[in-house]
Amino acid sequence: MKRLLIIGIGAGDPDHLTFQGAKAIAAADVFLLVDKGEAKDDLTRLRRDLIAAHGREPYRIVEARDPERDRTAPAYTAAVENWRSRRADIYESFVTDELADGQTGALLVWGDPGVYDSTLAALDEIDAEFEYDVIPGISSVSALTARHRVTLTRVGRPVHLTTGRRLAADGPTGDDVLVMLDAACSFAGTADDFHIYWGAYLGTPDEILISGPVTEVADRIRAVRAEARARKGWIMDTYLLRRTNCRPGPLRSPNGSLRDLS
Amino acid sequence: MKRLLIIGIGAGDPDHLTFQGAKAIAAADVFLLVDKGEAKDDLTRLRRDLIAAHGREPYRIVEARDPERDRTAPAYTAAVENWRSRRADIYESFVTDELADGQTGALLVWGDPGVYDSTLAALDEIDAEFEYDVIPGISSVSALTARHRVTLTRVGRPVHLTTGRRLAADGPTGDDVLVMLDAACSFAGTADDFHIYWGAYLGTPDEILISGPVTEVADRIRAVRAEARARKGWIMDTYLLRRTNCRPGPLRSPNGSLRDLS
Ligand SMILES: C[S@@+](CC[C@H](N)C(=O)[O-])C[C@H]1O[C@@H](n2cnc3c(N)ncnc32)[C@H](O)[C@@H]1O
Ligand SMILES: C[S@@+](CC[C@H](N)C(=O)[O-])C[C@H]1O[C@@H](n2cnc3c(N)ncnc32)[C@H](O)[C@@H]1O
Repeated sequence: MKRLLIIGIGAGDPDHLTFQGAKAIAAADVFLLVDKGEAKDDLTRLRRDLIAAHGREPYRIVEARDPERDRTAPAYTAAVENWRSRRADIYESFVTDELADGQTGALLVWGDPGVYDSTLAALDEIDAEFEYDVIPGISSVSALTARHRVTLTRVGRPVHLTTGRRLAADGPTGDDVLVMLDAACSFAGTADDFHIYWGAYLGTPDEILISGPVTEVADRIRAVRAEARARKGWIMDTYLLRRTNCRPGPLRSPNGSLRDLS
Repeated sequence: MKRLLIIGIGAGDPDHLTFQGAKAIAAADVFLLVDKGEAKDDLTRLRRDLIAAHGREPYRIVEARDPERDRTAPAYTAAVENWRSRRADIYESFVTDELADGQTGALLVWGDPGVYDSTLAALDEIDAEFEYDVIPGISSVSALTARHRVTLTRVGRPVHLTTGRRLAADGPTGDDVLVMLDAACSFAGTADDFHIYWGAYLGTPDEILISGPVTEVADRIRAVRAEARARKGWIMDTYLLRRTNCRPGPLRSPNGSLRDLS
C-alpha cells in the first residue's frame, strides 16, 4: 500500500509546527512541493525549511507547478472546482509515479488542512489507491486571535467563519465573524458598532496587526494593506469582526457588571 | 515586570503541542495548574506530562482548585460569568503572590486559547500588573476534522461554530455547523439531510469516531456516548453537522460534474 500524509504546518511561523507534524515529516520518503510562482516564494521557503529541519534522510522532493486559477471568473466556485481538478491530476501523478509500494508521501499544507484548503477535496477526486492521514495544524484563525489576545468565541455565542466574497455579498451574518480570503477589504462597509481585529503575514517577520472600531481603522488598514501588498508582491490577511454592543447575550450594565439577557 | 504565557496545548494528544508551545513551557518559572476534580484527572495529567517533558529546571508548579460552577443554573451565561470571576481571583493571586518581578508564569490551556475558553476573559478582569502573550494551540475543531479527514469549510462557504445549547435552541443555523459543549446530544433533532462527523476524547487513546447521516447514526452516538461517559466519569465530544444536499453552492449535476449555482 502507498501512504500519504497531509500535514498542517501552521500559518507562517516555523514554530507553529506540532510535534505530530514534525514526526510526520520525519516519516516521509517523498515530499510534493507545489510551486505557486515567484510571488509566493516565502510560502515555499517555509515548507523547504521545515523539510530540511525535520526530514529524515534519505528523502526526495518532487516539484510541480500550481495550475493557474482564473481569478477574474465571476463564478468563483466553478473556477475553484476547475483549478482543484487540475490539482487532483498533480496529486494523482505524485501517488502513481513517485511513490513506490510501501512508501510514504507528504503534502505540506498551509495552516490547518481543514480551513479553506482544497487538498482534501482534490484527493477525493483521484483514482490511485492509497491510504492517508491528516495532521492538524495551527490555522491563521488561531494565529490571528492569539496575536490579538482575543478569543474567537464569546461565552455561549456562535462565531461564523466566512470569506471576503460572502461578507461583501451578505454583510456580517452574526455578531462575531471571522473573514478569510478577502482581497477587497470587504469590512469597509460594516456598521459602526463593529470592532475589527486584523492581521497580515501572521507569524512571519512581516506580521502586521491593527485593531479598533471599523469606522476608525478601516482606512488605515486599507492603506497599510495596499502598501504591503505592493512591496512584497502578495499578501495574506484575516480578520475578526465583533459587534461590541449587541443582543442577545451578555451586556455590560450601567454599573459595569455583566448580566444575562437571554 | 511580570510576564504570563497563555499556552494552547492541543486537544488531547501530547504531540499536538507546537514547538512554540514547547519553547514557552521551557521559558516559564512557575506554572499554575487548576485542578478540576478527580473526574478530570486525565486533563491535568496531560499538563503535568508536558511540563515534565519540556519545562526547564528550576521551575515550580502551583496548584489551585477550580471553583465549582453551577451547572443547573438556567442562566448559562451568568453562571459562566460568575465562575469566571472566581477564576480571575485565582489568576490574580497567582500573579500577585507567586510571581516575582522579572519572572514568567504559565497557564496551560486545553486546545486553542481562542476557542470556547474563559482564560483570556478572566485575565481581563484582574487588577495585577503584568504583560502576557498567547500561544495558539490545536483546537478540538482541527483535531476532529483531521481525524475524520474532512474539511471544516467547503469552497466559498461559511461554517458556524456554536454550542450544544444554541443548537438545541435555534437548530442548525447553516449548512455547516460545528458544535462544542453539548451535553445533551442536541444533534438528534436535526433534519435528515445532515451528515454528522462526531468525535470524543480526540487525540487520546480513548478516541471514538462515528460518522454518517444523522438519522442513521444518532442512536448509536447516544448509546456509545452514555456508555463511555459512565465508564470514564467524564466525556468531551465535538461534532460537525453538514447538510449534504443544499443550495446555494456547488451542486453535483446529473452528469457528475460540479457547477456553480451562485
Ligand atoms: C486558502 S486559505 C488557507 C487557510 C489555511 N489553511 C489556514 O488554516 O489558515 C488562505 C487564506 O488564509 C488566511 N491566511 C493564511 N495564512 C495567513 C497569515 N499568515 N496571515 C494572515 N492570514 C493568513 C488569509 O485569509 C488567506 O487569504
Ligand atoms: C471549554 S471547551 C474548550 C475547547 C478548547 N479550547 C479547544 O480549543 O478545543 C470544551 C469543549 O471542547 C470540546 N473538546 C475539547 N477537547 C476535546 C477532545 N479531545 N475531544 C472532543 N471534544 C473536545 C468539547 O466539545 C468540549 O465540550
